Amino acid sequence: MDRIRELIERTGILDNAAMDAAKVRQDRLTKPPGSLGILESLSVKVAGITGNPLPELKHRVIITMAGDHGVATEGVSAYPREVTAQMVYNFLNGGAAINVLARHIGARVVVVDMGVAADIDANTGSFVNKKVDYGTASISKGSAMSYEAAIRAIEAGIDVLENELTKGLDIVGVGDMGIGNTTPSSAITAFITGKPAAEVTGRGTGLDDTGLKRKIELVKRALEVNKPDRNDAIDILAKLGGFEIGGMAGVMLAAAAHHVPVVIDGFISGAAALIAYELNHRLKDYLIASHMSVESGHRAILDYIGLKPIIDLEMRLGEGTGAALGINIVDAACKILCEMATFEEAGVSDREER
Amino acid sequence: MDRIRELIERTGILDNAAMDAAKVRQDRLTKPPGSLGILESLSVKVAGITGNPLPELKHRVIITMAGDHGVATEGVSAYPREVTAQMVYNFLNGGAAINVLARHIGARVVVVDMGVAADIDANTGSFVNKKVDYGTASISKGSAMSYEAAIRAIEAGIDVLENELTKGLDIVGVGDMGIGNTTPSSAITAFITGKPAAEVTGRGTGLDDTGLKRKIELVKRALEVNKPDRNDAIDILAKLGGFEIGGMAGVMLAAAAHHVPVVIDGFISGAAALIAYELNHRLKDYLIASHMSVESGHRAILDYIGLKPIIDLEMRLGEGTGAALGINIVDAACKILCEMATFEEAGVSDREER
Repeated sequence: MDRIRELIERTGILDNAAMDAAKVRQDRLTKPPGSLGILESLSVKVAGITGNPLPELKHRVIITMAGDHGVATEGVSAYPREVTAQMVYNFLNGGAAINVLARHIGARVVVVDMGVAADIDANTGSFVNKKVDYGTASISKGSAMSYEAAIRAIEAGIDVLENELTKGLDIVGVGDMGIGNTTPSSAITAFITGKPAAEVTGRGTGLDDTGLKRKIELVKRALEVNKPDRNDAIDILAKLGGFEIGGMAGVMLAAAAHHVPVVIDGFISGAAALIAYELNHRLKDYLIASHMSVESGHRAILDYIGLKPIIDLEMRLGEGTGAALGINIVDAACKILCEMATFEEAGVSDREER
Repeated sequence: MDRIRELIERTGILDNAAMDAAKVRQDRLTKPPGSLGILESLSVKVAGITGNPLPELKHRVIITMAGDHGVATEGVSAYPREVTAQMVYNFLNGGAAINVLARHIGARVVVVDMGVAADIDANTGSFVNKKVDYGTASISKGSAMSYEAAIRAIEAGIDVLENELTKGLDIVGVGDMGIGNTTPSSAITAFITGKPAAEVTGRGTGLDDTGLKRKIELVKRALEVNKPDRNDAIDILAKLGGFEIGGMAGVMLAAAAHHVPVVIDGFISGAAALIAYELNHRLKDYLIASHMSVESGHRAILDYIGLKPIIDLEMRLGEGTGAALGINIVDAACKILCEMATFEEAGVSDREER
C-alpha cells in the first residue's frame, strides 16, 4: 500500500510551459489554426504529460492483462471459461486481433497473467507471470478477492509498467482478456458512478435477452451482498473486481507518475480507470480515451471521469484493440506537431484579416 | 467525353462471392462475431470492391489536386490567393500536413496542378502537371470554365489515376488544395442536394461573420447567374466548379472502374464525389467516407450519396489529411481479415448458446 501511496504522491500536474509551446507551434504550422481539430489538442496534451513540447512516440506498448472470474460459470458469458487461457496462448502466438493491430501501429504487446484459472506454459519475452490467484471468487456470493490481493494486483500492474519503462516506453495502451469480466466491470461502474445496474450492464460477448436479465440481477446481487466502502477504492476492487482490473489500474497509476500518456481501451479498462481515478483524481490528465465501446456502461465511465473518446468504430472486443487504434492517432497528432513546416520555413503567406 | 462514358459503362457491381467469403471468415476469427464493428464491415466492402476475399492494401496513394478560383479575390477566404501555389511547393518539399500523415500511413503523395494560377516549377516524380487553365473565372459572374474544360479536367483525373495504377495502387485517397474552393463546393452542394445555400456554406479556413454572410450571398448569386442543367453533371461542374474538383471526380470514376477503393476526404472532395456520383450512381459502392468535416455542408453531401464517415476528429484542412487517416483504418481492417487466426487454427473454444 505504501508503494501505491508513494506513486500517487509523486504524480504531478501537466507541464504548462510545454503545452504553451506546443500550442504556439501548432498555430505557426502551415494550416489554418485549429483546422486539424482533435489532432492538435491531442498533441498539446501529450506535450503536457511528457513535459516535451515536441513529443516523439517511438516506443509504443500495449499491455494486455488476463484474469478469470468466479461469475463466469453463472451464465453471464457466451463463451466457456477456458477461453481466457486459450486466448492468452493466441496472444503469445500472434494470432489475436490485438497482435494484428499492434503490428499495424508498430507497438509491442506485453501479455500479463494476472489471475488466469490455469497455469500458462510460456517462456517468450512478451509474457509476464503476475498471477495473484487462479481466478476470483464469485462476486454474487461475496468478495472477489481479499483486500491484500487487491493491493497485490495493483502493485503487479505498477511492476509491469516500470519494467517496460526500462525497455523504452513513450505511450502505453491497456487492454484486457477475461471471460465474464464485463460483469465485475458493470458492478464497479454502477457502484462508483451511481448509475442503475440495468443502465451499465450490457451484452458482453453476445448475451441474449434472458442472459442479459440474469446478468443484471447478478450485478445487483453483487452490490447488495458486498456493500463496498465508497471512500476506499481498494475495497471496491477487492469486493467487485478482477485481478486484471486491478493490474490495469496499477499500470495507469504508474504511467501517470512517470509522465507516460496512457490510452484506455473499452469497458473493462474503463472500469480499471474508475478504480485508479478514485485512488488519484490527478490521473485524469494522463488518460486518453481511445474509443467509445458498444458495451453499455462505457459512456457512464467516460462521463464520470470527464473524457471524450477519439473514435467510435462500434467495437466491443477489448484486448487493447481500441487503444491500439487510439495510439496510432495520438502518434499521428505528435508527428503533425513535430514534422510539419511553419509558415516562415515554407515561405507560405499567413492569413489576412477578413 | 467518350472516354468518361466508356469508363462509367465498365464500372461493375461489387463482387458478392468475395464479400460472402470475407463475411464467413470474419465470423471464424478468434473474437465474438461483430465485435470489431466497422472494421469488419470495411474489410467486407474492400473485398467486394477488389474482388479479393483477402485484400492486401500494399500500395497506398494520396492524390492531392490543386487549383485556383476566380472567387478567391472576392473576400471569401481568410488567405491570399497565392497560397495555393505556395502550398503546392510545401507539398513537394514534404512539409505540409498531408506529407506528415502520408508518411505516417506509408502512402505516397501525388501532387497534381489542375489549374493553379501560376506556373509550378518542379520536376520531382511526385508532381504531375495537368493544368487546364490559370484558375477558374468567378462563378458569381458566369461559368467557372467552359464545358470542354470541365471534360478535360475529369479526363485529367482519369489519366492521373490510370498512371498511378501502373506503379501499383491498392487504395487511393483524394484531397484538394485551392484558396477559395469551399465556395464552388458549397454552390455544387446546394445545387445537387437541393439544400439552402446558408445551410451548406461554412467558414472555410476561418471567415468571420461578415465574411460568411458575403460568401452565402455569393453562392446564391452563383446559382442564379449560372442556372446549371440538373441532368448534366458536366454542366454543373463547368458552371459552378473548379479544376481540382473536376480532377478529383475523374480520379473517383477511374478508381471505381478499376476496382480500387477510393477514400474521400472532406468537403471539397465531397463536392467532387457529388459530381462523379451524378455521372455514375454505381460509384457509391466504391467510395469510402473517411471523416466528418467541421465544414457545414459536408454532412449534406454524405447523406445525399448515402455514406457514413469512419471518424470525426473535427478536422477541416483538406489536402487529403482525413483520407490518409481513413486509409489507415481501412488498412487495419483488411489486416484483421487477413492476419487473424481462426478458432480452429488457434485451438480456442467457440461460443456456447446462452
